[in-house]
Amino acid sequence: MGKTLSIIPLGGVEEIGLNMTVIGYGDDLIIIDAGLMFPEEDMLGVDFVIPDFSYLIENKDKIKGIVITHGHEDHTGALPLLLKEIDVPIYGTPLTLGLVKEKLKEHSLENATLIPVKPRDVVNLGAFSIEFVRVTHSIVDGVGLGIDTPLGKIVHTGDFKLDPTPVDGQLMDFHKFSEYGEKGTLLMLSDSTNAEKGGFTFSEKEVRRAFEDIFSTSQGRIIIATFASNIHRIQQAIDVAVKFGRKVILCGRSIVSNAQIALDLGYLQIPRETWLRLEDLKKLEDKEVVIITTGSQGEPMSVLSRIATDEHKNIKAKHGDTVILSAKMIPGNERSIGRIINHLFKRGANVIYEKVSEIHVSGHASKEELKLMLNLVKPKYFIPVHGEYRHLVYHSNLAEKVGIPKENIFILENGEMLEIADTGAAKNGRVNSGRIFIDGKGVGDVEDMVLRDRRRLGYDGIVLVMIAVEKLTGKLVSGPDIITRGFVFEDTVPDLINNIGGLVSETLKVLDKEIMLDPSLVKAKIRSVLKKYLRNTMEKSPMIVPIIFEV
Amino acid sequence: MGKTLSIIPLGGVEEIGLNMTVIGYGDDLIIIDAGLMFPEEDMLGVDFVIPDFSYLIENKDKIKGIVITHGHEDHTGALPLLLKEIDVPIYGTPLTLGLVKEKLKEHSLENATLIPVKPRDVVNLGAFSIEFVRVTHSIVDGVGLGIDTPLGKIVHTGDFKLDPTPVDGQLMDFHKFSEYGEKGTLLMLSDSTNAEKGGFTFSEKEVRRAFEDIFSTSQGRIIIATFASNIHRIQQAIDVAVKFGRKVILCGRSIVSNAQIALDLGYLQIPRETWLRLEDLKKLEDKEVVIITTGSQGEPMSVLSRIATDEHKNIKAKHGDTVILSAKMIPGNERSIGRIINHLFKRGANVIYEKVSEIHVSGHASKEELKLMLNLVKPKYFIPVHGEYRHLVYHSNLAEKVGIPKENIFILENGEMLEIADTGAAKNGRVNSGRIFIDGKGVGDVEDMVLRDRRRLGYDGIVLVMIAVEKLTGKLVSGPDIITRGFVFEDTVPDLINNIGGLVSETLKVLDKEIMLDPSLVKAKIRSVLKKYLRNTMEKSPMIVPIIFEV
Repeated sequence: MGKTLSIIPLGGVEEIGLNMTVIGYGDDLIIIDAGLMFPEEDMLGVDFVIPDFSYLIENKDKIKGIVITHGHEDHTGALPLLLKEIDVPIYGTPLTLGLVKEKLKEHSLENATLIPVKPRDVVNLGAFSIEFVRVTHSIVDGVGLGIDTPLGKIVHTGDFKLDPTPVDGQLMDFHKFSEYGEKGTLLMLSDSTNAEKGGFTFSEKEVRRAFEDIFSTSQGRIIIATFASNIHRIQQAIDVAVKFGRKVILCGRSIVSNAQIALDLGYLQIPRETWLRLEDLKKLEDKEVVIITTGSQGEPMSVLSRIATDEHKNIKAKHGDTVILSAKMIPGNERSIGRIINHLFKRGANVIYEKVSEIHVSGHASKEELKLMLNLVKPKYFIPVHGEYRHLVYHSNLAEKVGIPKENIFILENGEMLEIADTGAAKNGRVNSGRIFIDGKGVGDVEDMVLRDRRRLGYDGIVLVMIAVEKLTGKLVSGPDIITRGFVFEDTVPDLINNIGGLVSETLKVLDKEIMLDPSLVKAKIRSVLKKYLRNTMEKSPMIVPIIFEV
Repeated sequence: MGKTLSIIPLGGVEEIGLNMTVIGYGDDLIIIDAGLMFPEEDMLGVDFVIPDFSYLIENKDKIKGIVITHGHEDHTGALPLLLKEIDVPIYGTPLTLGLVKEKLKEHSLENATLIPVKPRDVVNLGAFSIEFVRVTHSIVDGVGLGIDTPLGKIVHTGDFKLDPTPVDGQLMDFHKFSEYGEKGTLLMLSDSTNAEKGGFTFSEKEVRRAFEDIFSTSQGRIIIATFASNIHRIQQAIDVAVKFGRKVILCGRSIVSNAQIALDLGYLQIPRETWLRLEDLKKLEDKEVVIITTGSQGEPMSVLSRIATDEHKNIKAKHGDTVILSAKMIPGNERSIGRIINHLFKRGANVIYEKVSEIHVSGHASKEELKLMLNLVKPKYFIPVHGEYRHLVYHSNLAEKVGIPKENIFILENGEMLEIADTGAAKNGRVNSGRIFIDGKGVGDVEDMVLRDRRRLGYDGIVLVMIAVEKLTGKLVSGPDIITRGFVFEDTVPDLINNIGGLVSETLKVLDKEIMLDPSLVKAKIRSVLKKYLRNTMEKSPMIVPIIFEV
């Protein structure tokens, strides 16, 4: 029996984000993307999430390289932590690697091997021969992959949309995808993010029209907030600023850094006299100003948030300002974004956002584009990737509609393996997988149990009960002393602390000496009595921590 | 100088929810609505929020009554807590009072004076003569108010949309609003919830067409989740069920209770043979079943959530089921809703939701309707209510567009007073106002400081440091003992506890006897040393609580 191909998503098939797929043949493994995810609302205190790498660490000798499709953090953000475990070369286009390099620098990983490639370049990694294929997306220099394997061609679209009029004129490489279809594709993995959206996604160029409308009617300063990685959006804002005779100030660390990288690599053009520095702001009239910045998701420490709440040193929102939030409101962020919009309106600014104007287009293909891609590439097998479960189902339904047999479509879970042999394809078990929570500098020190405790503490607070017990007699010699945090405002419930203390005293009074001399029994008793009391009288369930000193 | 009219919103003009307005003249006050708000994501552990009533408590002798415009909780939810402070009659239409009564029962307030009124009824309360005017909204039996005052007519729209084809055939009372405009209106307060939406809001009847499309193509069970208070939505689901020969099972406490109230009052019609009980489910074929339930916002304990995760005793989602989420995805809830949709898809159900089909329409007027209302009533003064700041700004802009002078439009904050005299209108100071957080049975025992502590505990956890000090010598006789909760998973950072303990020991070793004998100094020292250490080594800021026993 011959060797088989294995395809294992380690992230990105049960969520938006965490994108990472492993492809194996014999003793060769390649990794496609290594992304992070921003925490969901119940992951209290978590900074970001990465996939569990343990399968890769166990197989580190087999890994021939990491291929990155584009520079978004949901495809690159786990790289620094992955590279601390595994030292392999990383392949990507110049802008992608430029952004990656910047991230790696923050982690003192300057020595990583970054190998730049151009679209249509071919790289050989063990049993695999990987061709890079230009796609259009909401970041410049994105690629899909055509991967030659001993069993046939695997096509990975990366994140894409079919933009017929991209800002830089660099079309999606339809011809290459078409060639793959013509010659025969064994398997396609394709972006499902927008699989529930009908029709076609608008071209990035549509945003220019909206910008021009707004610029033509604005007399004061114009402030545009967008994603720092959306170089084409920034380019369009700059182009329209030039057309209307305004100067541009880039404001915020990430946007300046990304623009500088894109500028150095030739992906962004700013006329010298158009780009001014923040210090130059006071020399300009309001009608000459465009400020491009971040904070479109309502992030509390962002430049936009500080502008909106008078906390920015140089820029304060004022009457006459026009603020454009040129970005999707990511679910979960609406309330923070709403708060910033309210602050801006209170200060007299006009705010233009997704709900009231067309100042954003998605970077992901909608249903009609996804079907076109399926028709072009005509894969034998199909795996929808990059999406929550429902997006994968929608994408599968589209694949069925364009003629791929149901039994050749595989919705995988993270860690689940699809094995392809000459004789067919089937799921074949699973490898270690999961999510690692990153909080501060720690890797994996926040586990589910810690998050459960945080939710408990965060929702109901903590009650500490301190007593001292005489070591020989088991007599209570001090306490109970009660401390609470995050529980209730004690001034409004003055008897509470006394009542809790009294209840504990009563409880301890009737305990035998043997029990009093066993701290774990005393703790259990205090916990159970207080738990019941607080639930019945106040409907609250704080964490109860008894502390016993033996003296 | 004659007496003046005062208008004070106590809630609802800086948020969606908490709706409550006080109107005063001389020694007479009336209250319009008394609503709650569900907590925002940073109000950890809070069940709901109500307006600060202290102004009303101070003036309780002046209050002549409470007028409720409709039965939604953002207009009625604060009533139980308000009635515990103030005993005045409550006026509303039968369904509104039916729903209120049910709420009051839960708080043992059966003795409250509830006075039912019909549209076009007039009630005299002190200086005020209040006419009830039918409006269309997403709950049956909603009204606006025409309030005669010694200085002129005040019109309050309540929540409304201009539904030209309401399900029950009961049109908005255009003629009365038109009469107010013809005779002259001093002031209008109007619903701003949808003031950022262009065009007209669709009629509730449009949903019927969507239901019919779905019913005609579904072979299995149909499960519809909606708001329990949306009686017309429930009626339409029932009507379509009858048309397609299906039986209806209402599932969930609030939906059964609301339906029963509406049925008793004649607002809901269910053919006897159509309404079956949950126990009858097993006798039916799948294609005969419609289940109507709650949980459209992804609430974790709701029936829909339990159906989606196999935790419901009688109903488990399965292949062939069609689940319709017939409700708006309220911002902040998208992720929870998304999770439920994913669970349902995983179990083979088809899920139809707002994003992919027209199975919900809003209950609030969009821009064109708001302008029409302004044109009909032609108020001299205008106060936009029911909205966040940006909605009020949008509504003000509409009012200006239809010809109300800018200086006659007042955006108020909660607690801010508009005073109207014969000579004009102006803002005139503010009264006590704010938000009271309700957590469990406590009223107002969760203040900002408690919420700050909860956020701290929830995001970074707590570190307890216990030591015992000899009372006379200041010597450390026991500890430091370290306990953490919600901080890190200690197994993954084995040295951490030792390091913290060591650091505290080192710190205490060099302290003078005097300092060691002052617990507050020792605590401050431990806090500052650990804070710095944890921030530098781990980038974490848990709450640090030193506990000192003197022995």
